[in-house]
Amino acid sequence: MKILFETGNRGKLLEVRAIFAGLGHEVEQLEDEYPEVQADTLEEVVEAGLKWLWARHHAPIIIDDSGLFIDSLKGFPGVYSAYVYRTLGCPGILKLLENASDRSAEFRCCAGYIDSSGKITMRSGACRGAIIGEMRGTGGFGYDPVFMPENEIKTFAELDLERKNTISHRGRAFAKLAEAMQGVKE
Amino acid sequence: MKILFETGNRGKLLEVRAIFAGLGHEVEQLEDEYPEVQADTLEEVVEAGLKWLWARHHAPIIIDDSGLFIDSLKGFPGVYSAYVYRTLGCPGILKLLENASDRSAEFRCCAGYIDSSGKITMRSGACRGAIIGEMRGTGGFGYDPVFMPENEIKTFAELDLERKNTISHRGRAFAKLAEAMQGVKE
Repeated sequence: MKILFETGNRGKLLEVRAIFAGLGHEVEQLEDEYPEVQADTLEEVVEAGLKWLWARHHAPIIIDDSGLFIDSLKGFPGVYSAYVYRTLGCPGILKLLENASDRSAEFRCCAGYIDSSGKITMRSGACRGAIIGEMRGTGGFGYDPVFMPENEIKTFAELDLERKNTISHRGRAFAKLAEAMQGVKE
Repeated sequence: MKILFETGNRGKLLEVRAIFAGLGHEVEQLEDEYPEVQADTLEEVVEAGLKWLWARHHAPIIIDDSGLFIDSLKGFPGVYSAYVYRTLGCPGILKLLENASDRSAEFRCCAGYIDSSGKITMRSGACRGAIIGEMRGTGGFGYDPVFMPENEIKTFAELDLERKNTISHRGRAFAKLAEAMQGVKE
């Protein structure tokens, strides 16, 4: 089956294509940025995005949305992680956590699929860890240089990509979504 | 003419009612929270909100959206001011500006009106000022205790309400909107 994946990120496209190739699905890039609603959860953002895209394309579509949730900041920057990254960046996050004793945080991802009839399937993945006191590493993107996943001694920006994809919130969400879609044929 | 004003805030309702009573319009509260889109400007949020509400009520409707834009933080918290207030609050803003030399900021408000035929009129107001180094005052709400408007020696939370409404972003936006609507009769 052919599935459209809405993303402007070529790296994500290749990652998701590899996951679904194993299930016999062909993933094609769709560049049609959907309006993100201001919502409290990634799931609401993804559900609204899927419906919006489906109303325009009436085809099987996949999207995902991710965020960094810092425990001691009541989940900030959460669903607004992209905006906060553009304005405060990693330095702002480090500043907010200066002298903080609780530095625990988690990355979350929600991956969603809408089939050609409009039926939605969503799965979420998380990766717990901590915000370290400085930026380390040059890989990844966004908050990766300040996030060290639990049981690792490297940040997301220092880990090699294969390892990162295995333990990451996005890798986990897409693995679950692919599992939920197994046997789906149209 | 009867106009619906979507707000959950009784204080705002009374303020807006007073402005439009002078024009012979009767303002009634509408409690039907519209989904806020993630957008870069207040204007986009208000336009989308007006269209959403109009599709449900087909009546003359007024809404507004406000935000605090801090110059040295690239406009943060901006259109996400409400969310950032719920998570970081005033202490987070003070932390981000610790030792900052440039503390200039402005409050902005966009007030919008959609008439019974679906035509939209929007006007924006701003109030420039600075983020002081501590919280002062018990009036107002949100970031008022840390915002001192230019040419004043009191924060928004210390100013009396009449003075605040005269110089505030919201007062200015609604005054402009009322002016634009003058002579509108349905």
